[in-house]
Amino acid sequence: MFAKILNDVGRSCPLVHCITNCVTVNDCANVLLACGASPVMADDEREAEEITSIASSLVINIGTLNSRTIPSMFRAGRKANELGLPVILDPVGAGASQLRTLTAIHLMREIDFAVIRGNISEITAIAGGKCGTRGVDASDPGVLMGDLPASVSSLINSLRENTGAVITVTGPKDIVSGENGMYVIKNGHPMMSKVSGTGCMLTALTGAFCAADPSDPAAAAASAAAMFGVAGELAFDRLTKAGGGTSTYRSYIIDEVSKMTPEKMREAAKIEIR
Amino acid sequence: MFAKILNDVGRSCPLVHCITNCVTVNDCANVLLACGASPVMADDEREAEEITSIASSLVINIGTLNSRTIPSMFRAGRKANELGLPVILDPVGAGASQLRTLTAIHLMREIDFAVIRGNISEITAIAGGKCGTRGVDASDPGVLMGDLPASVSSLINSLRENTGAVITVTGPKDIVSGENGMYVIKNGHPMMSKVSGTGCMLTALTGAFCAADPSDPAAAAASAAAMFGVAGELAFDRLTKAGGGTSTYRSYIIDEVSKMTPEKMREAAKIEIR
Amino acid sequence: MFAKILNDVGRSCPLVHCITNCVTVNDCANVLLACGASPVMADDEREAEEITSIASSLVINIGTLNSRTIPSMFRAGRKANELGLPVILDPVGAGASQLRTLTAIHLMREIDFAVIRGNISEITAIAGGKCGTRGVDASDPGVLMGDLPASVSSLINSLRENTGAVITVTGPKDIVSGENGMYVIKNGHPMMSKVSGTGCMLTALTGAFCAADPSDPAAAAASAAAMFGVAGELAFDRLTKAGGGTSTYRSYIIDEVSKMTPEKMREAAKIEIR
Repeated sequence: MFAKILNDVGRSCPLVHCITNCVTVNDCANVLLACGASPVMADDEREAEEITSIASSLVINIGTLNSRTIPSMFRAGRKANELGLPVILDPVGAGASQLRTLTAIHLMREIDFAVIRGNISEITAIAGGKCGTRGVDASDPGVLMGDLPASVSSLINSLRENTGAVITVTGPKDIVSGENGMYVIKNGHPMMSKVSGTGCMLTALTGAFCAADPSDPAAAAASAAAMFGVAGELAFDRLTKAGGGTSTYRSYIIDEVSKMTPEKMREAAKIEIR
Repeated sequence: MFAKILNDVGRSCPLVHCITNCVTVNDCANVLLACGASPVMADDEREAEEITSIASSLVINIGTLNSRTIPSMFRAGRKANELGLPVILDPVGAGASQLRTLTAIHLMREIDFAVIRGNISEITAIAGGKCGTRGVDASDPGVLMGDLPASVSSLINSLRENTGAVITVTGPKDIVSGENGMYVIKNGHPMMSKVSGTGCMLTALTGAFCAADPSDPAAAAASAAAMFGVAGELAFDRLTKAGGGTSTYRSYIIDEVSKMTPEKMREAAKIEIR
Repeated sequence: MFAKILNDVGRSCPLVHCITNCVTVNDCANVLLACGASPVMADDEREAEEITSIASSLVINIGTLNSRTIPSMFRAGRKANELGLPVILDPVGAGASQLRTLTAIHLMREIDFAVIRGNISEITAIAGGKCGTRGVDASDPGVLMGDLPASVSSLINSLRENTGAVITVTGPKDIVSGENGMYVIKNGHPMMSKVSGTGCMLTALTGAFCAADPSDPAAAAASAAAMFGVAGELAFDRLTKAGGGTSTYRSYIIDEVSKMTPEKMREAAKIEIR
């Protein structure tokens, strides 16, 4: 099932509209092309709705949100809802500033998201909990290393119920919580947290996967997380042989996405259904 | 002739002012340095004219046009015209939104462009024809694979006559249409369309080549397209040996631009004069 | 001493708030992660102060300054001063436009900088001297090749005295001028000037090093310059073996930062104390 969605992306070549941050926008564009989708980045208020209307899904990432782009996020989001397109939210840095936390919360009130993806700090911040966000990297406490603590679990559940969205929490393990159950994905490599934009890239990929298979956003989100994690593992193997550092690793991760096959996914994906 | 222009760029080291999109701006800066030119990216209205006035050419790329940068495009463009500097237009995504199409058309009315470069969808959109633009990647129909259909040919001609600009249409083959004839360039590799920004990079290079040789923008545009295509071919050869994917390919393309020589161009460039 | 600061960065993992340009923002984020720090890029006026208040240092880079981000620079800078955090200025392109030169000068009047880093053209422009800035690359005249001319030396001294900041002038040799003397760093490789963003990356690293060791910004700035120069040398060695060009070189430089150790620095750093 999970591997099949990758084929669906390749076959349908969905156009993914991203309103995203200027730090990792190029990586998001390239990883979308790598997985077989097409990116379109457009954040001016005067064209946001029109671009959404020709796209197959919308990704809203608040990594460098600002007075000019926030209104575009709302406009594009409402239009996507009107058209029934899946909308994905990446609440980058929520908890680090009022502007980020409140904008994310405001977006969740006004727009129906198919999937919300963040690290544990960000998800905690937008779920109304308290947890220190410290920048936008994924250096989270090892909270997701072992079994999920009950407090985190109930937080994810309440966010899911309040928003109707599938919740993806990424970390050492990735959790994808949908209304029919939870996927735990044990792929990826710790070095991915030393590359800027791995979270943003996964969010963009989630947009592509949901576009290709809009009927089951939880399966699409889990498939995207597993695929990207497998890419991170294969890239790390190649890096070990080549002897590079974090920048070469970044390139190799995108490389492996471009070379991914359903067979590789079937062989390496570790998705547990709970 | 075409290979000579590369030397002219290296010798004159032209400063190329780019008002461009945030997705591929870094690639444009790096490819300009790689070819021997110098980039300057400046898009605030209060400095756009002044920066243009110290530059040797101006590149306007509407990839992420917005309310803040559109006025800067007009100001810089008019200043470049006043000073007689070559101005290049990349109408990224024209046809995908009214804002893009109309801004491109408005720019063409107000500013004299030396070269306009786009894919067939974009060129069709700004020439007043109809053709579905679907995002900003180069996954065009194979319209340019075989001989040029008469309808496309007459569209390019009318755009050239109406604007006075050389028209570069990129695709499986690149067409450069100037007032004294047409160049058909058969270089490049299909995988270039899986890398975000190859079109933008070619536009930036066209700006550098026109700056080095402003007397014949058609030859400069054809030379830039052939050079970049040859870089794409050499990069693909190297990629095949190294076994990478699309991100490594992106790096290798810029690498090959930085290692390009007139000899390599003479050997590999396939420029047909019609 | 200089090698020790690298360990301090790794141990304290400082959060570095960057208000920087859209051209090299991704490189700055990745090089900060590579050296053991954490990046946060936030340039909206409504969150600039709040983000600074959770950071350990602030980097202001005017590479693509604009009407929206300039007020954020002032707000964040004042907040950092209030909190006693080190603030670093990169006056990219000062001298190329009134907006750049005057904004840099205005920033220096309102904000106490720990370190100001630029190339000789930029430093000359903001010190009130005259020197043609030509874009934002580091193709400076060989003024720093041999011994420092008296005119440049006195310019740097007067800028240091007027601002109270340590002054880093980068070029073939890097000069770090603090109130207790001057460091001359003879690391790096000429090919670094063919990669967009090496200056910006060094400024970001200086922010991380000053955050880890705020008591002696001159030593921190010299250590960052030597570390980055050594990375450039090691990357060039690796590039020679691999046979790449400027884009692979960019990746390798960041790679080498991620693999840097105090031992490598001790072995290769060429820091002369004058």
